[in-house]
Amino acid sequence: MKRYAYFISDGTGITAEMLGNSLLAQFEKIEFERVTLPYIDSVTKAEQAVALINADSRKSGQPAIIFDTVIDKTIRQVIDSAEGLKIDIFDAFLKPLEQALEVESSYSVGMSHSAKNTSYLSRIDAVNFALDNDDGARTRHYKTADVILVGVSRCGKTPTCLYLAMQYGIKAANYPLTEEDMADLRLPKSLEPYRSKLFGLTIDPDRLSVIRNERRANSRYSSLKQCYHEVDEVETLYQREQIPFISTTDKSIEEISTRILAETGLQRRLRS
Amino acid sequence: MKRYAYFISDGTGITAEMLGNSLLAQFEKIEFERVTLPYIDSVTKAEQAVALINADSRKSGQPAIIFDTVIDKTIRQVIDSAEGLKIDIFDAFLKPLEQALEVESSYSVGMSHSAKNTSYLSRIDAVNFALDNDDGARTRHYKTADVILVGVSRCGKTPTCLYLAMQYGIKAANYPLTEEDMADLRLPKSLEPYRSKLFGLTIDPDRLSVIRNERRANSRYSSLKQCYHEVDEVETLYQREQIPFISTTDKSIEEISTRILAETGLQRRLRS
Repeated sequence: MKRYAYFISDGTGITAEMLGNSLLAQFEKIEFERVTLPYIDSVTKAEQAVALINADSRKSGQPAIIFDTVIDKTIRQVIDSAEGLKIDIFDAFLKPLEQALEVESSYSVGMSHSAKNTSYLSRIDAVNFALDNDDGARTRHYKTADVILVGVSRCGKTPTCLYLAMQYGIKAANYPLTEEDMADLRLPKSLEPYRSKLFGLTIDPDRLSVIRNERRANSRYSSLKQCYHEVDEVETLYQREQIPFISTTDKSIEEISTRILAETGLQRRLRS
Repeated sequence: MKRYAYFISDGTGITAEMLGNSLLAQFEKIEFERVTLPYIDSVTKAEQAVALINADSRKSGQPAIIFDTVIDKTIRQVIDSAEGLKIDIFDAFLKPLEQALEVESSYSVGMSHSAKNTSYLSRIDAVNFALDNDDGARTRHYKTADVILVGVSRCGKTPTCLYLAMQYGIKAANYPLTEEDMADLRLPKSLEPYRSKLFGLTIDPDRLSVIRNERRANSRYSSLKQCYHEVDEVETLYQREQIPFISTTDKSIEEISTRILAETGLQRRLRS
């Protein structure tokens, strides 16, 4: 059975999607048709959204599930009239928060405020830093890095650096450990001054071989033998040099990134 | 007055942070000390979290605000014992959802499920696509692009492409429009076959000049005169060639990205 789920927001819709998907994930057996309706910031747009929801509900014969993060009261009242179950975090949580904090929210006094991104420039800076210091091409900016990820080719360093930059404004460089680097199981010279910033990634060798085969099929680089060898060397190096490390196998970029933050104690530069 | 806000999760903590920050943004006048506690996946870790929260609450003389997205019941009961206001989306919304959907959630039957990232590889693919097709260096993969962002240097193309890839698995290329490209106010030849995929970015020239000055101070490139000239040319080009476009000035990467999705009708490849 298929059900419609709507994520409605006066902004990007990202909060409504995250909240909604966390809840819907608890209903494994139901297939949801997900529709995001962002930037619903006028009564007219809200009325169009309601018309769409009602048409879908009638078509499917089941009331929709509606995740609403619109702040404006008038617009929310319009969305309230849609046929379906409304899941509304502002409605549910602002009153108890006002009581605990002993002030009225902007929402209650009629002045809406979305979470603002005050750290825009520092995040762009961090993304540019990640791009400029990718793949060990340059190491001269390592002294300004917050963290330097190391690991074998294709273990997930670049996407993780970009996510740390984009989401948390963290300056993350990365350096690929090659066979030459690990020849005598020593840390490359260029990394030695930054030992305290190093964080290792490792990966299941079978998985690594699959990933490398997508890039260069049937090469020595992607062979199981080579992948087992490199991963074995790199893990020995981490242990010997006491570099903290985690495995990226079966982890999302979000999970790899937040585990690195948790283990290093790096501060999230939160968007708020 | 300063209050402690905790974001507690058995996973990355990202949902708790987003939900929490959306709500806290409605209390502008209060300064919050934000603490994320991710991967709280055992009773022991939950007890440590409670001890930390209670110590902070006593220190500040104010009960904490606790945003909890832990799924496991036993762990949640431990967190319930902390001194503070608990904001718990599972507790608040799963019962009404179960009634509307007429099934028990995995959570209720004792089998927790977090939102899983089934599209990991397609997102990594998309990030690699964005990196490989950045800045117009290569155009031969444009036929597989979902969207091609165009705009003057430093208007926000690269971070937006990376966000579209990382968050939504969308293959986004970008092409910088230079003075030569715009010499006769025509579309560059290499872009013509992909007209339907083009999306323009523009930016306030004063803001552009500030950004460019950070890169190359006091150059022709970053001069106000040059920035006004380029932005004027590029907006004329968009209008003449009927390329949809938005301004990136004062917008977050998330907002630019989701507005592009809304205007192009590109499907979000949701993580669920």
